Amino acid sequence: METIVKEHERKVEICYSPALFPVYYTNKDCVVVVIDIFRATSAICTAFQHGVKRIIPVSSVDEAKEYQAQGYIAAAERHGEIVEGFDIGNSPFSYMNPAFKGKEVVLTTTNGTKAIERAKAADHIIVGSFLNIDAVCRYLERKNKNVILLCAGWRDRYNMEDSLFAGAVVHRLKKNPIFKGLADSSLAADHLYELAKGNLNDFLKNTSHRNRLARLNLEEDISYCLQENTMDLVPVYKGNALVIENE
Amino acid sequence: METIVKEHERKVEICYSPALFPVYYTNKDCVVVVIDIFRATSAICTAFQHGVKRIIPVSSVDEAKEYQAQGYIAAAERHGEIVEGFDIGNSPFSYMNPAFKGKEVVLTTTNGTKAIERAKAADHIIVGSFLNIDAVCRYLERKNKNVILLCAGWRDRYNMEDSLFAGAVVHRLKKNPIFKGLADSSLAADHLYELAKGNLNDFLKNTSHRNRLARLNLEEDISYCLQENTMDLVPVYKGNALVIENE
Repeated sequence: METIVKEHERKVEICYSPALFPVYYTNKDCVVVVIDIFRATSAICTAFQHGVKRIIPVSSVDEAKEYQAQGYIAAAERHGEIVEGFDIGNSPFSYMNPAFKGKEVVLTTTNGTKAIERAKAADHIIVGSFLNIDAVCRYLERKNKNVILLCAGWRDRYNMEDSLFAGAVVHRLKKNPIFKGLADSSLAADHLYELAKGNLNDFLKNTSHRNRLARLNLEEDISYCLQENTMDLVPVYKGNALVIENE
Repeated sequence: METIVKEHERKVEICYSPALFPVYYTNKDCVVVVIDIFRATSAICTAFQHGVKRIIPVSSVDEAKEYQAQGYIAAAERHGEIVEGFDIGNSPFSYMNPAFKGKEVVLTTTNGTKAIERAKAADHIIVGSFLNIDAVCRYLERKNKNVILLCAGWRDRYNMEDSLFAGAVVHRLKKNPIFKGLADSSLAADHLYELAKGNLNDFLKNTSHRNRLARLNLEEDISYCLQENTMDLVPVYKGNALVIENE
């Protein structure tokens, strides 16, 4: 542990790349928040809000196809686009489908589901997005464990939107005296969020994935994913699937 | 390449952890700037300014001991302190020694020399610190290649001081139209440097390694390492050693 944290205090760190997860996962008494703002974790939250029962994240398109062959609703995205042979990718709007209510969905995406895969060793994995940010923060306060904010990034590289969300979580948690152990990664993202919070979309105007989505005419997805706190739910990874826990 | 860069434009990316170097080193036409502000790369620059001829970075204390046994001046630091059996660690002040003039020094440090080791696959590796920042930027402009700013961090984790230096380099390079390809990592660090540049030491007051050094009574080292542009030299990695190139 590099930051000095007293026994009753919790450490908050940001892991900016799934490839670094083993570096940060040194204390198992933690909750891992998986973050892929554009758009996997925003889509997952939206799916649950619209009644989906379980989401099975898988790493490869082939796995998703196997589930599809068994009759599951299957979603696959690569490079921002729906994979051929699938009807849905990771646009949140595609999960607002009354036909999905009570159903299980299998999902594979370029970065988000891979981040979940990398975090699997952890006992507590949840899904965060701007849409459910306050619910995520309340969950973290209730659990009273160390926090690893795991940014899915883009192909293991740093990206801005996931970092900004991580900073937004730090910004909220730091008001609670139990979360005193802010690592340098957390301090940096908090500063960025402080700069960006008035207008997240404007702050992201020169960033790579935001512009990749804009070129794909996905401006509505971008605006949707940047709304803060529109739903009160926390997807939790249990067994091999994401579910909403009843507490 | 994730950021869209036109043919005559160069990409500037920051790799926040040596463990991620293979992720960023996808285009070999690049210069890698190794950064370990507290204190390895600041010490290396200082050594050259005071007449050291070559610095051989090694990864392990055992390797440093072998060189020491052969009569080399050897320096070793772990966890911020001089390793037992060595006279010098990575305090820049210890390299201001007239007896080192014209000599070769072998150096191993917790993070900095390991970052150089990780970058070895690259053709062009240089050493950056606030002390030689303008010389580093001029070198990068002259070489006209893509740039990877490799932060040594702390045990493969993100750290603030290396990120701020990387941001300071981006801040200067972005004024040159050839460096148009700023990755998200670069945009983020540029924002941080913009916030910090009036008073770097104050900005670092809650960061972990700055405080680790302060607990070791190394405030003078901290202030020394945060001075911008006090020397006009660029250490370059050639063969197995760092040298100053005559151009």
